Amino acid sequence: MLFKVEMTVNIPSSLPKAEADEIKAKEKAYSQQLQREGKWLHIWRVAGLYANVSIFDVADNQELHDLLTALPLYPYMDISVQPLCRHPSAID
Amino acid sequence: MLFKVEMTVNIPSSLPKAEADEIKAKEKAYSQQLQREGKWLHIWRVAGLYANVSIFDVADNQELHDLLTALPLYPYMDISVQPLCRHPSAID
Amino acid sequence: MLFKVEMTVNIPSSLPKAEADEIKAKEKAYSQQLQREGKWLHIWRVAGLYANVSIFDVADNQELHDLLTALPLYPYMDISVQPLCRHPSAID
Amino acid sequence: MLFKVEMTVNIPSSLPKAEADEIKAKEKAYSQQLQREGKWLHIWRVAGLYANVSIFDVADNQELHDLLTALPLYPYMDISVQPLCRHPSAID
Amino acid sequence: MLFKVEMTVNIPSSLPKAEADEIKAKEKAYSQQLQREGKWLHIWRVAGLYANVSIFDVADNQELHDLLTALPLYPYMDISVQPLCRHPSAID
Amino acid sequence: MLFKVEMTVNIPSSLPKAEADEIKAKEKAYSQQLQREGKWLHIWRVAGLYANVSIFDVADNQELHDLLTALPLYPYMDISVQPLCRHPSAID
Amino acid sequence: MLFKVEMTVNIPSSLPKAEADEIKAKEKAYSQQLQREGKWLHIWRVAGLYANVSIFDVADNQELHDLLTALPLYPYMDISVQPLCRHPSAID
Amino acid sequence: MLFKVEMTVNIPSSLPKAEADEIKAKEKAYSQQLQREGKWLHIWRVAGLYANVSIFDVADNQELHDLLTALPLYPYMDISVQPLCRHPSAID
Amino acid sequence: MLFKVEMTVNIPSSLPKAEADEIKAKEKAYSQQLQREGKWLHIWRVAGLYANVSIFDVADNQELHDLLTALPLYPYMDISVQPLCRHPSAID
Amino acid sequence: MLFKVEMTVNIPSSLPKAEADEIKAKEKAYSQQLQREGKWLHIWRVAGLYANVSIFDVADNQELHDLLTALPLYPYMDISVQPLCRHPSAID
Repeated sequence: MLFKVEMTVNIPSSLPKAEADEIKAKEKAYSQQLQREGKWLHIWRVAGLYANVSIFDVADNQELHDLLTALPLYPYMDISVQPLCRHPSAID
Repeated sequence: MLFKVEMTVNIPSSLPKAEADEIKAKEKAYSQQLQREGKWLHIWRVAGLYANVSIFDVADNQELHDLLTALPLYPYMDISVQPLCRHPSAID
Repeated sequence: MLFKVEMTVNIPSSLPKAEADEIKAKEKAYSQQLQREGKWLHIWRVAGLYANVSIFDVADNQELHDLLTALPLYPYMDISVQPLCRHPSAID
Repeated sequence: MLFKVEMTVNIPSSLPKAEADEIKAKEKAYSQQLQREGKWLHIWRVAGLYANVSIFDVADNQELHDLLTALPLYPYMDISVQPLCRHPSAID
Repeated sequence: MLFKVEMTVNIPSSLPKAEADEIKAKEKAYSQQLQREGKWLHIWRVAGLYANVSIFDVADNQELHDLLTALPLYPYMDISVQPLCRHPSAID
Repeated sequence: MLFKVEMTVNIPSSLPKAEADEIKAKEKAYSQQLQREGKWLHIWRVAGLYANVSIFDVADNQELHDLLTALPLYPYMDISVQPLCRHPSAID
Repeated sequence: MLFKVEMTVNIPSSLPKAEADEIKAKEKAYSQQLQREGKWLHIWRVAGLYANVSIFDVADNQELHDLLTALPLYPYMDISVQPLCRHPSAID
Repeated sequence: MLFKVEMTVNIPSSLPKAEADEIKAKEKAYSQQLQREGKWLHIWRVAGLYANVSIFDVADNQELHDLLTALPLYPYMDISVQPLCRHPSAID
Repeated sequence: MLFKVEMTVNIPSSLPKAEADEIKAKEKAYSQQLQREGKWLHIWRVAGLYANVSIFDVADNQELHDLLTALPLYPYMDISVQPLCRHPSAID
Repeated sequence: MLFKVEMTVNIPSSLPKAEADEIKAKEKAYSQQLQREGKWLHIWRVAGLYANVSIFDVADNQELHDLLTALPLYPYMDISVQPLCRHPSAID
């Protein structure tokens, strides 16, 4: 089941750089693991912004919630979620 | 070059049904042709809405503009565009 | 799988009253059938507004989309959808 | 008398984790007590967000106010309230 | 039980003046009857606008809904509702 | 001359509790004095929020400004003001 | 007593040009009469828009309401009102 | 050349009172100097808010920018600017 | 003196195509004349939208107003205006 | 390929002035280098605001992203991006 998720990252300037870097490294590893498992189908950078547009493929709403709230950067993100389904004009 | 495009369709009730159906049929054919050409990479329906989330892969801004304004449903759409680029965490 | 759906109805004054009444009667029958099937779990009126707050229990995003777009009043509704999941503090 | 209440939690990063955990534990106990008393009828998690959608069943506006402002997490919440009533299409 | 209700009137120019005048006369009579019954506690005009700020005193959400949707001008109004309760600093 | 004033209070968590309590006590005394003088005609709590809806009866805009900016909680308030006048349907 | 009033004019294309011109002529005469009486203190055009920024000097909210609702273009205007008072830094 | 400028002041509570008072005194002197020079044509307080509505009469956009950014309170202000011109109904 | 002007065109479907085409032809000729006169410095299409971003170079606010309101498409446009000045980092 | 980029700068008052000045000096040098390279085509100050309107001419979305996120002031900026293309009425 597909969801579009948009994430905007706001890391407060009070967070020490070493700590921020460690969280970002964990975020990257976590994201790539979910991509390899086929759950994080797509991730694109929004040009000019510290933000991404992502497509998740999960079993249900609960799995989506669990995956998102486990993001290392989750406490610093604004997140919006839209449930998607197949478009009748899609050819795939 | 990738763009996220969100389209919401508002067909006025004053448009005769036969005319609306003909425009929708043209829209579907046009969309599927662009998908086969690899320019309209993804199209998903937003659950519950007469709207879609799409990813376009085009040569430049001008081609995106030409493709979108040629949509048969274009006069009845609200459209928003966001330029995308590769995300540093993407594995593909 | 649960979704909160909020629907606001805007019937244009140009729609003949007899036609509007027929659509509303179909809407009521359709809503009650889905409630009896356990798919439309709750429906509440928002005090003072021609609007409702509803909870749907469906198999997936696609089924939600199919149920909503089949609403007889769908062409006259503004709809917003939020995917829900179990709250860790819920006792049921 | 029914109310839909939406709560979004924003715990400042300056709040010590031990203190935050204690407040959350109190919040959970308080919420479950109100659920058992039949005053907090439903609570759902919004997928992907630190937020909930709730239905309260209270004697009047005053009781709703007293219950909400006594929430241990109340100082860290954005709250919106909508009065509900029975929907004419409801079958229960 | 008290509610603040704000009503903004938008009568379409397509409504014949005689018909509009008749609806307004009914609205005035209906409003004054509810005021005399003690249910429509206050009504003020917002300076410069075709809008009012009102306070209703009703038994519950359902009665508020029934009173508002029976307004002769209801189909032409934007309405917003806020449940009120006693303020701890009030002296009355 | 009447004005509707809506006040939402946001006391920063950095303000020591003793200081906040003292300001709130002064606010209450000040509010009750203005109510007794007939200048602060009504004050209602908005259910679920740290906010009020108030009606002021003052000589002119200047007096309204002087009364509001002298509120002990003024530095912590979001305030919106709407000038009111008699409604032609009012019976009082 | 001073008020800032902002007016944006939206004349529907369905209004015959002769009728629109007559209303505009009446509007101009009415505005100039109020200016000569010292009630409409200032009127400026917003560059690029069919809109104005105005300052009214009236006895009270009621007189402001009566003057504004008597504007010949009133049915075609969006209006916003802000009560003003003397600024402590003003030298006049 | 005329501009409407709206300024809302937000002085952070972390600014020491003595420092804030000094800035406000400089602001007042600066504002009165510009008024005497005929560049700051009008300044009104918005009733109930720490905000003003002002009219500037300057040579060009550049002068407006230079005057505004030199305001002692500028770092603590939200500012909005609208270019004005003569209204065809103005009598002065 | 420079201004950024953003224009979005909304031609109602009720306007006959021949009439719309004639207005668009006049608009193009008018725009190109102003460009040749050096008053309409830049005009760009916003990709995907029937909208443009433009830079005007005019003597003052009044000339900007006169040029914009003389646009043949003006009655069908939403327009926003921002006064610009030289940026201290600009090298030209 | 052209993009309109709007940047609003919000430097927190907690940033030491020396540090802020150094970042601003780097920003200016960086901006001027990109202008000389023909990538930052235009930069204008918005009158009255700490903000600019800019036009970038880059190879693709990725280059735009790389240039913007390398801005020394980037962590303190709100940024909005719109892809542009040639306007059919442009004469250049």
